[in-house]
Amino acid sequence: MSGRPDPARATSADVARLAGVSRATVSFVLNDTEPGRVSDATRARVRAAAEQLGYVSNAAARALRAGRSNLVLMPATQAAIGRLVSDWLDDLQQALHEYGYTLVLHGGRGAGPVEVARAWAEMRPAAVLAPVPGLTPAAVELLHTAGVRAVIATGGEPVPGAHTLIFRQEELGRLAAAHLIERGRRRLAVLMPGERGLDAFAAERLAGVRLAAEGQGVEVTPVPLRYDWDDALALARSWPGFDGVFGYNDDYALLLVRALQEVGLEVPGAVAVAGADDLLPGRIARPALTSVRIDLSGAGELAALVHRLIEEPAEAGVVDTVRMQLIVRDST
Amino acid sequence: MSGRPDPARATSADVARLAGVSRATVSFVLNDTEPGRVSDATRARVRAAAEQLGYVSNAAARALRAGRSNLVLMPATQAAIGRLVSDWLDDLQQALHEYGYTLVLHGGRGAGPVEVARAWAEMRPAAVLAPVPGLTPAAVELLHTAGVRAVIATGGEPVPGAHTLIFRQEELGRLAAAHLIERGRRRLAVLMPGERGLDAFAAERLAGVRLAAEGQGVEVTPVPLRYDWDDALALARSWPGFDGVFGYNDDYALLLVRALQEVGLEVPGAVAVAGADDLLPGRIARPALTSVRIDLSGAGELAALVHRLIEEPAEAGVVDTVRMQLIVRDST
Repeated sequence: MSGRPDPARATSADVARLAGVSRATVSFVLNDTEPGRVSDATRARVRAAAEQLGYVSNAAARALRAGRSNLVLMPATQAAIGRLVSDWLDDLQQALHEYGYTLVLHGGRGAGPVEVARAWAEMRPAAVLAPVPGLTPAAVELLHTAGVRAVIATGGEPVPGAHTLIFRQEELGRLAAAHLIERGRRRLAVLMPGERGLDAFAAERLAGVRLAAEGQGVEVTPVPLRYDWDDALALARSWPGFDGVFGYNDDYALLLVRALQEVGLEVPGAVAVAGADDLLPGRIARPALTSVRIDLSGAGELAALVHRLIEEPAEAGVVDTVRMQLIVRDST
Repeated sequence: MSGRPDPARATSADVARLAGVSRATVSFVLNDTEPGRVSDATRARVRAAAEQLGYVSNAAARALRAGRSNLVLMPATQAAIGRLVSDWLDDLQQALHEYGYTLVLHGGRGAGPVEVARAWAEMRPAAVLAPVPGLTPAAVELLHTAGVRAVIATGGEPVPGAHTLIFRQEELGRLAAAHLIERGRRRLAVLMPGERGLDAFAAERLAGVRLAAEGQGVEVTPVPLRYDWDDALALARSWPGFDGVFGYNDDYALLLVRALQEVGLEVPGAVAVAGADDLLPGRIARPALTSVRIDLSGAGELAALVHRLIEEPAEAGVVDTVRMQLIVRDST
């Protein structure tokens, strides 16, 4: 480091000497392994000594020795970060912390799934949780080869080599569309967000709408929409007579509802609109928005699963299915 | 690993042999160093060989050799993740990627700033970007001692030892409150979110409101509100006659507007309400929400700064001030 002197680095032996304990005890305390084994008083003494000496154990060296770190890695998908997911991530961080793991959201980018998985693998995480579009079988294989013990995929179909948490994006579209059709709607629009990272999810939700429409004499049209007022207004002004809309999620659905109201198209009279995610803004909108609720409540269970798979890696298996539920309100 | 055979790990020498290049070239290509130095064709050959052999270079070993990784670490603060910030994070990831860095959002928790900084330091990041409440001088010192080259703080006041990106939370409250007072409001409520992780920001925004109210004969009252419809409705039903509200941000402001409308209190007639962040839902609400815009546009500039500080660590200095601007609409 230029600009400031490089201070001498304290070793764990120095910490042990100052605290009057063994190096093993220093390691137990600072690495948070074997929590029950060291008294609170000793723990405090070791921490104070480490602090006084400016000692930081080296995760790189530790990961190298152990072949893995205590990291649980998730890709930091821009698309996946919303209020629903960020509250859930907060719960998950806390739950993983209680098992001694640290959740890391990794912003690596690459040409394809294998490139990206390579960047993940370089951190030698103990576990990787990722949505299926990024977890091809080749990517899973690479992670296992690099020593990642638990690979957990979230997606519609089981991924070979990974535990899969079944989350059917299609189901969101299917539930909303079946309801719109039941309400007598025959010309359905499906909003396709123009924002980065959402296209894979949007395509799956559209497939769900088509599934519900099959054999029902219902027309399904994907309609691109950016999350932008001018875009929504332009769409509403040239409205092609759709009588039902699945809005991708509540945000896009609410944007369109507002634009339809602006041009005098009544919701749900002229156009019935349903969203997904069941967020508060939809619940309190006028008309209140019909939506599909996604049950992400099991952060504690997921942390327990991650821990179990790290301790005892097993062959791939379907883990659990995320539950979804239609919530009918005034917009349909 | 139990349950599956541990495959033999390929070395970079194996990759070099298969691709017909030197080990240095393998390192250049797979570590993305010296991008101009290797032709695209050679690059592709090395990548194909690495893929075929399941070779993953070890970031732990590399970080140990280099004393640092290519990681730029930010704490994954639940509070900070919203639409505004997640779009910006996406831009920042991309901009850092172009300099060869990987952004990692770290979910570590600890008893205090020094504990948390220790967990960050263990990853040997090249740079740490964090808000001031987590970056005490002791935490900054620990990071530097551990070899972190660039420590960038965001907050209202310069942090000793770190570069500081000045972001005055107070300014949000001050701008909104000055406007409410100019509109003749004399009994101001400041919404204080009950959600995790928002209290430090809320306290600073409240301080800004008090600053604007000083000597103006204006009463300022902090009012707790969870992001919850029942909570908002209860508050509106027992409304203590405030004639102006600073809503912490647009989300809380919109929630309160809707609850006030529900109990027949007209906005802005009876109560003027201003938010912050200037997000789309506020722009399209009825009445459209007065807000304060935060200019987070400089992801490219921030990435350039991070790179510059990593390459040439310098003494602490104020870097830049995030600009904010009042946007007056119909709710005030």
